[in-house]
Amino acid sequence: LTSKLPKVGTTIFTVMSALAAEKGAVNLGQGFPDFDCDPQLVNAVTDAMQRGLNQYPPMAGVPVLREAVAAKLAALHGRSYDAGSEITITAGATQAIITIILAVVHPGDEVIVLEPCYDSYVPNIELAGGTVVRVPLTPGTFRPNFEKISAAISPRTRAIIVNSPHNPSATVWSEADMRRLQDILAPTNVLLISDEVYEHMVFDADKGQIHQSAARFAGLAARAFIVSSFGKTYHVTGWKVGYIAAPAALTAEFRKVHQFNVFSVNTPVQHGLAAYMADDRPYLDLPAFYQRKRDLFRAGLQNTRFRLLPSEGSYFQCVDISDVSELGEADFCQWLTTEIGVAAIPLSAFYGDGFDQRVVRFCFAKKDETLHLALERLAKL
Amino acid sequence: LTSKLPKVGTTIFTVMSALAAEKGAVNLGQGFPDFDCDPQLVNAVTDAMQRGLNQYPPMAGVPVLREAVAAKLAALHGRSYDAGSEITITAGATQAIITIILAVVHPGDEVIVLEPCYDSYVPNIELAGGTVVRVPLTPGTFRPNFEKISAAISPRTRAIIVNSPHNPSATVWSEADMRRLQDILAPTNVLLISDEVYEHMVFDADKGQIHQSAARFAGLAARAFIVSSFGKTYHVTGWKVGYIAAPAALTAEFRKVHQFNVFSVNTPVQHGLAAYMADDRPYLDLPAFYQRKRDLFRAGLQNTRFRLLPSEGSYFQCVDISDVSELGEADFCQWLTTEIGVAAIPLSAFYGDGFDQRVVRFCFAKKDETLHLALERLAKL
Ligand SMILES: CSCCC(=O)C(=O)O
Ligand SMILES: CSCCC(=O)C(=O)O
Repeated sequence: LTSKLPKVGTTIFTVMSALAAEKGAVNLGQGFPDFDCDPQLVNAVTDAMQRGLNQYPPMAGVPVLREAVAAKLAALHGRSYDAGSEITITAGATQAIITIILAVVHPGDEVIVLEPCYDSYVPNIELAGGTVVRVPLTPGTFRPNFEKISAAISPRTRAIIVNSPHNPSATVWSEADMRRLQDILAPTNVLLISDEVYEHMVFDADKGQIHQSAARFAGLAARAFIVSSFGKTYHVTGWKVGYIAAPAALTAEFRKVHQFNVFSVNTPVQHGLAAYMADDRPYLDLPAFYQRKRDLFRAGLQNTRFRLLPSEGSYFQCVDISDVSELGEADFCQWLTTEIGVAAIPLSAFYGDGFDQRVVRFCFAKKDETLHLALERLAKL
Repeated sequence: LTSKLPKVGTTIFTVMSALAAEKGAVNLGQGFPDFDCDPQLVNAVTDAMQRGLNQYPPMAGVPVLREAVAAKLAALHGRSYDAGSEITITAGATQAIITIILAVVHPGDEVIVLEPCYDSYVPNIELAGGTVVRVPLTPGTFRPNFEKISAAISPRTRAIIVNSPHNPSATVWSEADMRRLQDILAPTNVLLISDEVYEHMVFDADKGQIHQSAARFAGLAARAFIVSSFGKTYHVTGWKVGYIAAPAALTAEFRKVHQFNVFSVNTPVQHGLAAYMADDRPYLDLPAFYQRKRDLFRAGLQNTRFRLLPSEGSYFQCVDISDVSELGEADFCQWLTTEIGVAAIPLSAFYGDGFDQRVVRFCFAKKDETLHLALERLAKL
């Protein structure tokens, strides 16, 4: 059997979580909360199951949940998506992204990714027979380099994948960034895959920072698949539910593949989420909730020799390890997990060539007590 | 945007369910129960959610559920699968099948499908860049034609997809059939994708008929991805959970793609299913449960001019419409739904060229009262 993905092993997140468990380390590696979701959300799903909503939902998702997503996008970004033909519920954001790529990338098409990037993008493109075109974000700042992006576009470019708030670097694209992207794409047919799974974790609103969804820019929205995740927003990463919003013509192609990938997504979870979102707009509390954790964690890290990078959004905090260790970042993460008892993710795992700039990523979506315990251990460094 | 799947529309199941809803027809089209699952199963999932099991599960599935599957396969078929390296939990059987195909089919590889077949197989193969090789089942009986299967194998054949109990024809492969397949594949490297989602719906045990899983045949098991569905077995088609069992080397390739498709599957549902399966072996009651419904439905159909085909397994009953109508089977299903108020699925939807042999499929996974109502309406024909 010749492997389709010869270079692929087990994802770094699985590897580091397993090592953390084995060593009894505080797991600040894989991105997931160690606290629970709102019990009301559990009740809402239970209620749906008890009402017998346990059979196939409509392929594109239950209408009430699609309407809740459309209402949210309209309220936050002022763009109307038609719940019937432009919103689709997915089995998580990862499933949304592979499905988009299978639906639009023909063999030989080029897809631009900005490195570092989430580890599923590149194998997804390869499975579709596409050619990966890697454009580095600026080392050190992780800001987009628009000259390089512009230069990477060719007549074969089918799509570009953009991710803001950014995993792993925790940077957030500004309005100017998005306008620049819009200008670059304007004369092309390049599709935008906008991975916005951390959309509700953008900090420093007092300084005017907001989530610049592709939905806010007409020239981007017209060519964009906007991908997000209920799991990250509602602290239920294990429920595996996401959505995409895209113009009807793009959604139609998406659904052709979606129906033959997962067909549809867990019915009672969809109804539960819809009921929960209808009561309130619970995502509005999220930025403040996570900003407090970010600030707590950053304050604690001041007692270490790590150099802190900005954390503008997402639930990640990156640090430069140069003053702490001579090790490469992958070895450092192994060592930190094993010897110090705190798991982290090396940024090199998000680069095709393992580019090592001595930066590692911590996840602060954790109970305060977990963060304090990790900080205590890190203070010993 | 050039479509990757130009010939694909919305699945027939979605189309007919929508039409049935619009016309207030009794929906015997799409295959799903109109009765609820065991409340204990709902309680088990609720319990898992309330215990806080709401974050990412291990990528391959929660160990207790994989162990329950391995125990079942050992008990029923006498083959040991290693829960760690040979069982993977999937977001339904459809997701399992596309993932297998993406993992093993290289561009230009041939994959044999036996027509009529489930409507996701062909687009799945096309998305992987494979070539579909269609071998017809024998018209009228839907029995495999092993000469034709044998003749279809070439040096480019990567895999064959087999489905017993069979959707849509409700035939079940015998031990002799499986041995024949084993002999044909023995001198080849062809992989077997064995779609066994109706594994627990095989009838006439008193006549010695059992489900002949590929797991029972060493020469098949060594090359087989065995795919099944918890949704069909436990009356929760909307929960979207399935599994695959395959030798470790095949599973390793499967998981490389699985982790970049859905990554993992709803955590509380997995724990709930594991707890439910541990208490008891609830699948043991399923054949008798559905055989009674089959017999009730067939008895009622005796009062119509439909010619009944055998229903050896699955929850489907096919009928020949020749004595009832002049219409082609697709038009007949439209008419039956609209005018008579009973939805059915035309078998032509399972053929690439729409081959029409005047046969339509009813689903009898319905409350007795639903079946009675449908039969009343059909008796008017
Ligand atoms: C699907 S496991 C990875 C979770 C995550 O998004 C991350 O840690 O970056
Ligand atoms: C995923 S909808 C189709 C259900 C089914 O398996 C069938 O009706 O054949």
